[in-house]
Amino acid sequence: MYNIDKLFEAVRAKGHVCVGLDTSAEYVPPAERKRAASDAKAVLAFNKALVDSTFDACACYKVQIAYYEEMGLEGLGCYAKTLRYIREKGGLVIADIKRSDIADTALRYAKAHFAGDFEADFVTLSPYMGMDSIEPWLSYADQNGKGAFVLMRTSNKGMRDFEYLEISPDKKRVYHAVGDKLAGLAAAHCGKYGYGAFGAVLGCTERDEAAEIRKNYSNLFFLIPGYGAQGGAADDAALLLREGNGGVVNASRSILKAWETELKKSGGDGSAAAISFAAEAARRAAIEMRDAIRAVVK
Amino acid sequence: MYNIDKLFEAVRAKGHVCVGLDTSAEYVPPAERKRAASDAKAVLAFNKALVDSTFDACACYKVQIAYYEEMGLEGLGCYAKTLRYIREKGGLVIADIKRSDIADTALRYAKAHFAGDFEADFVTLSPYMGMDSIEPWLSYADQNGKGAFVLMRTSNKGMRDFEYLEISPDKKRVYHAVGDKLAGLAAAHCGKYGYGAFGAVLGCTERDEAAEIRKNYSNLFFLIPGYGAQGGAADDAALLLREGNGGVVNASRSILKAWETELKKSGGDGSAAAISFAAEAARRAAIEMRDAIRAVVK
Repeated sequence: MYNIDKLFEAVRAKGHVCVGLDTSAEYVPPAERKRAASDAKAVLAFNKALVDSTFDACACYKVQIAYYEEMGLEGLGCYAKTLRYIREKGGLVIADIKRSDIADTALRYAKAHFAGDFEADFVTLSPYMGMDSIEPWLSYADQNGKGAFVLMRTSNKGMRDFEYLEISPDKKRVYHAVGDKLAGLAAAHCGKYGYGAFGAVLGCTERDEAAEIRKNYSNLFFLIPGYGAQGGAADDAALLLREGNGGVVNASRSILKAWETELKKSGGDGSAAAISFAAEAARRAAIEMRDAIRAVVK
Repeated sequence: MYNIDKLFEAVRAKGHVCVGLDTSAEYVPPAERKRAASDAKAVLAFNKALVDSTFDACACYKVQIAYYEEMGLEGLGCYAKTLRYIREKGGLVIADIKRSDIADTALRYAKAHFAGDFEADFVTLSPYMGMDSIEPWLSYADQNGKGAFVLMRTSNKGMRDFEYLEISPDKKRVYHAVGDKLAGLAAAHCGKYGYGAFGAVLGCTERDEAAEIRKNYSNLFFLIPGYGAQGGAADDAALLLREGNGGVVNASRSILKAWETELKKSGGDGSAAAISFAAEAARRAAIEMRDAIRAVVK
């Protein structure tokens, strides 16, 4: 059974939210950060509390490794422990690593992130170098069920620079070329609910193209960024879903910093907030997002 | 002073070779690997010996992080120590990380790889997401001299999948679009020898296009893969150089495994080879490559 099938079932049971643990130490309530022996320890305690509080309100977690690499070796220890905590609880975790390399190097990366200290259920990959930077990872799909989301059309402004370029002769764009290759892979490595082991990253910030993309790439499960801060709303994200499933919608800061938002609304400054309060605020934010998406999903 | 200026001076003094420390524990002579307390320790000892032996025969080092991530947390400790060893010796090191992310996340990555445990002189970056995944790194160029090589046209077969797609309306390819943006950046952040702080990764496997690329992107310093095992020869690489400078040519396995190649030629099996022998063989391979390129450079 591919992990993509497990993700499909998690979405069916718990909704479409992917909680993004892009956890900077700055997002930990200041009093708790100060009390911790190090920033990495503060982040780990914060992550664990948020995983506990959001576990039944989200389909999966996405851990952005940059925030841990930033803290050096100790940060990567915190990263490894965060992944392990989610997986030992029975949760699904996407390692947001956007790795990109070929052949033997890709296999080394795959071993790094699909086994050992940094084992995750899914990774994100960048396709610029071509399919020989994606295919080596597939051996772990067929043998261990592992999955990946390959950047197709992202939610940032800069996506117009290269992803969006028109390619001749048929007016398709670069991201369509990526999607076409991924659809081929998905057909050859297909899970029991009709989605390929490897899906795509598809931002919900370009509403006009969403319905067509969803129709044309029906066997790709989408990891959907761009919700909230980047401008995407629940009905934008819903256009990229299919029969109520087929994608997870990521939110990071709106959930991680929900404690701050709530306190600001009530006039507090948050300096003495406890992690337990941050965790409950995160849960409320995740549930609100889950329900907002469910309300518009067909 | 940008690091790209230091690299220019290193090329002028020591030739065009970039020694790729894509060091798998499998490349360490078996007797030495067995004697070490761990694979990561074996790799570190091997790297240090090779840096010592090749130091005056190469312009810089490139450390491929995948080979260290593969060994988990201890591997990343070895990675950090390898970078530090090269930098404390006064050498220049390129962190081959091909990171790819935007905005705040890119800044986190930049902090991770331009400061702290994993500080390097240069990094490699993947441009798929657009220029907002490249530009955040530039603050470290202007403040600390740091450099980057952005994937433009790589040396693997799969580069035809996306990098090589024709974009309308003017028959340019995707990699030209990347190069055009990079040339603009280079003009705005230009070192004293006429090369931008950020250069490009340009494989030497497509001979036909090389002279034109060199002419059209005269302010980009190239990191050139594809030499040796991937089919590129000294005169292919030389087409991507400019006035005897303007690029470094990477070789990894041909240098790391030179000890094995030499022993095979003489009928030995290498099982008892010492690290000191491996280091001397690496030096001979680096010098041979340096001289082969120098001989054809105009």
